[in-house]
Amino acid sequence: MSKMFVGIDLGGTNIKIGCFNSRLKLICKTSAATEANMGPESVVDKIAKTVEKLLKDNGFFRKDIIAVGIGTPGPAKYKEGVIIASPNLPLFKNVPIKKMLSKRLNAPAVLENDANAACWGEYVLGAGRNVKDMIFFTLGTGIGGGIVCGGKLVRGSDGNGAELGHIIIYPGGRLCGCGQKGCVEAYASATNTAKRAAEAVKAGTKSSLKNVLERKDIITSKDVYEHLAAGDKLAKQITDETAEALAIVCVNMLHATEPKRIVFAGGMIAAGDILLDRIRYFFDRYIWPLKKETVEICFATLGEDAGIIGAAALAKQIKKI
Amino acid sequence: MSKMFVGIDLGGTNIKIGCFNSRLKLICKTSAATEANMGPESVVDKIAKTVEKLLKDNGFFRKDIIAVGIGTPGPAKYKEGVIIASPNLPLFKNVPIKKMLSKRLNAPAVLENDANAACWGEYVLGAGRNVKDMIFFTLGTGIGGGIVCGGKLVRGSDGNGAELGHIIIYPGGRLCGCGQKGCVEAYASATNTAKRAAEAVKAGTKSSLKNVLERKDIITSKDVYEHLAAGDKLAKQITDETAEALAIVCVNMLHATEPKRIVFAGGMIAAGDILLDRIRYFFDRYIWPLKKETVEICFATLGEDAGIIGAAALAKQIKKI
Repeated sequence: MSKMFVGIDLGGTNIKIGCFNSRLKLICKTSAATEANMGPESVVDKIAKTVEKLLKDNGFFRKDIIAVGIGTPGPAKYKEGVIIASPNLPLFKNVPIKKMLSKRLNAPAVLENDANAACWGEYVLGAGRNVKDMIFFTLGTGIGGGIVCGGKLVRGSDGNGAELGHIIIYPGGRLCGCGQKGCVEAYASATNTAKRAAEAVKAGTKSSLKNVLERKDIITSKDVYEHLAAGDKLAKQITDETAEALAIVCVNMLHATEPKRIVFAGGMIAAGDILLDRIRYFFDRYIWPLKKETVEICFATLGEDAGIIGAAALAKQIKKI
Repeated sequence: MSKMFVGIDLGGTNIKIGCFNSRLKLICKTSAATEANMGPESVVDKIAKTVEKLLKDNGFFRKDIIAVGIGTPGPAKYKEGVIIASPNLPLFKNVPIKKMLSKRLNAPAVLENDANAACWGEYVLGAGRNVKDMIFFTLGTGIGGGIVCGGKLVRGSDGNGAELGHIIIYPGGRLCGCGQKGCVEAYASATNTAKRAAEAVKAGTKSSLKNVLERKDIITSKDVYEHLAAGDKLAKQITDETAEALAIVCVNMLHATEPKRIVFAGGMIAAGDILLDRIRYFFDRYIWPLKKETVEICFATLGEDAGIIGAAALAKQIKKI
């Protein structure tokens, strides 16, 4: 008889759900629209029903669930399992989601920040395997972060640690969505990389991206790295600025927790090896010559499943079998 | 019969040694000139003899030693207990000091970075008491750092973590002794605070510090905060720049490991509350308005004993009684 760990990645747009056996092998997965505007009761109900259907469709039952892990954007009281507020889940105010889901699925549950959950997934089964100290960045709309020190996820004193997107690299620089100036997120997230390209085009910089902006009225990060591959000079400059910003934060995190591996995930990594090469180039330019640093800078390997894998792995931690 | 933990703080100029009972109460302490130019064999011999004499003078014997902790400047292979090299101990190249001292004192020993040892001392018995997550800076010739996460000292993948003085806050800025540009150490160490004042005076900025420079041919950090207290405008500006640099690194470390307390130690804190007030002021200016941060920014409380206390506390960890 198989027992299951359930990993849930609750985002503003989609809910991803996976069922994993005791060795964290993915048995089955599904996803559904969050419909966050229906409110927390309705979303929790939807999650529970989707989990039950997923299990049933694959020959399992609710009683097979050992434990549930849930990743959500913060800020939250993770220990208590309460979502305080979330820009992407606007009706979720002080929602005790851990308790609600635990009750509905009749199994213990654990709540974790979504970037931390994805970090933990990569650490356990992806790009972080075989090391004990890792830094994780996810480059999407914003920049999420995760830190593993000595084999343990760093949660911080209030569960809101590893907000690595908000490390200030250029004091007094670009305004970030968080209200600070000069955060790495304000330069190097997928969204802000694209935004910087659009700003440059609007300011008159010559680029093949000008046609894109005129046609679609927007430039995406995908446009930037497609035009980069096609040899556009502005796209190269914008990508370099993203890589430079990321390299500075890599140097800083190396001096903080001395990771053995620094892992990048999220939409922006579709830019491919050219981005990685440029991050490494700038890292070498910024890092001290005092001693040879052996940290590996690489891309994540689990893709979109990192969040559900990490959530399930965290569920496994609360219910060791 | 009392059993002792011995804490040793091995610096380029002085060796400090303390004997602590099993509750880490300081029983007796002493110090001696390092005489690093005599070479590692001679220095180890001196440490051992000084420990033995200290014990004897206080009615104890070598056999009363349970374990020994040694703090030294890096870089080192801390696990193996080997000092690789050190700017302040120029003849120490690949010296297995842990093994050498352990043999001489017939007790197990542990080697730790000196700033980490002082951090651990403050954490266990000083300004870090009653929290689980702390950041530590020591502002001297350079800036040393320490990180405690969830009650554990962060050592990094190779034992060289928490080099917080080399976090880059102004990319492309002042050249640091480490070879990087824009490190917080290049602005806010006691030495570089004084250096910036001297540079400004030489560049023609009006200041009462000009007389000091003319009289002594040097300005110290003590001069800076004495003239600050006396109302000198340049001293105020220099102190503000130090405080601003430290505040930025506080914001960054808050977003990294989310400490509950950030503790400053070292010569520079003799500047007093005015320095602390300005660090807090700039912290409030740089930190996000997204949520209220409750981190406490404060001074260390153990003074020069932090290193030997921390080393003894680390010795206690390897030999629990």
